[in-house]
Amino acid sequence: MKRSAFYSVLAGALLILSVSACNNKVNEPEEKEEMEATTPKDTFSLEKAKTEIIDANSEFASLFNEGDSTGVANLYTDDAKFMMEGSPAITGRENIQSAIAGIKNSGISRVDLRTIEVWGDEDMVVEEGELTLYREGVEVDRGKYMVLWKKEDGQWKLFRDIFNSNLSSD
Amino acid sequence: MKRSAFYSVLAGALLILSVSACNNKVNEPEEKEEMEATTPKDTFSLEKAKTEIIDANSEFASLFNEGDSTGVANLYTDDAKFMMEGSPAITGRENIQSAIAGIKNSGISRVDLRTIEVWGDEDMVVEEGELTLYREGVEVDRGKYMVLWKKEDGQWKLFRDIFNSNLSSD
Repeated sequence: MKRSAFYSVLAGALLILSVSACNNKVNEPEEKEEMEATTPKDTFSLEKAKTEIIDANSEFASLFNEGDSTGVANLYTDDAKFMMEGSPAITGRENIQSAIAGIKNSGISRVDLRTIEVWGDEDMVVEEGELTLYREGVEVDRGKYMVLWKKEDGQWKLFRDIFNSNLSSD
Repeated sequence: MKRSAFYSVLAGALLILSVSACNNKVNEPEEKEEMEATTPKDTFSLEKAKTEIIDANSEFASLFNEGDSTGVANLYTDDAKFMMEGSPAITGRENIQSAIAGIKNSGISRVDLRTIEVWGDEDMVVEEGELTLYREGVEVDRGKYMVLWKKEDGQWKLFRDIFNSNLSSD
């Protein structure tokens, strides 16, 4: 081998080495992108979650007003707690369905739900809100509530639901 | 310049190029480490938060039982809401202090608070719990509550507090 040919091969080998060594490093920005893609906390929008919860409340009210207690109960998680005045916490979808049917049968024909504020992340959101109850179109009660919403299969479900009346019982 | 010397210089230049090009990439793992270090969510312990909230509830009960309504009110954030049955939400520490004093003056001598479960992160925790009220040592009411706790200056403070009675008013 001539000396010039040796240097030529050496230069070529170093070029290949430098390209392949740098290729290993080139992968890292891709890894970073993947990391970001698998960190949904960065892309979570509380404003969007609020809109979704307002929509879920509209559905809740529509189903309640139509007398569909099974439909309302299906908006709760299977292990939800419905925490109403005058009873220990009512646990589980089946018992919640009975409680909702009971409220409806007591003469409450319509409920209005108004979201005030929400806090949370992509898995759980706490909502503070106000409610109004009607009997044959006449307002009979007004109250406040807190709901802990849980995301299940991409849908917000009521997981804890507590409320009370603003009206004095005296 | 001799041909062999040219190849020698070329080889050296490529070596420098490959080292300097790769040095740029070497910084990236450090950036990744910094990213992890500034993510406190990774180190948050819900179990620890639960203990801290149980302790805050003990302090709440002690202050209430001693008749220190100002001390109780100081456990709330300045913009807190106290959401009791029979009244619209009571907003702000000063109004909450009056409400606590009112409950105490109505004859409720003691409160017991029992944490059932907590959910949340290092900034906000939701607590589900049970309460018992006593009048001169006799249990007169039992209920359930949800509190949204907010961390302020390293201390958990009540930010939203809603509760109702398990007892039927009939």
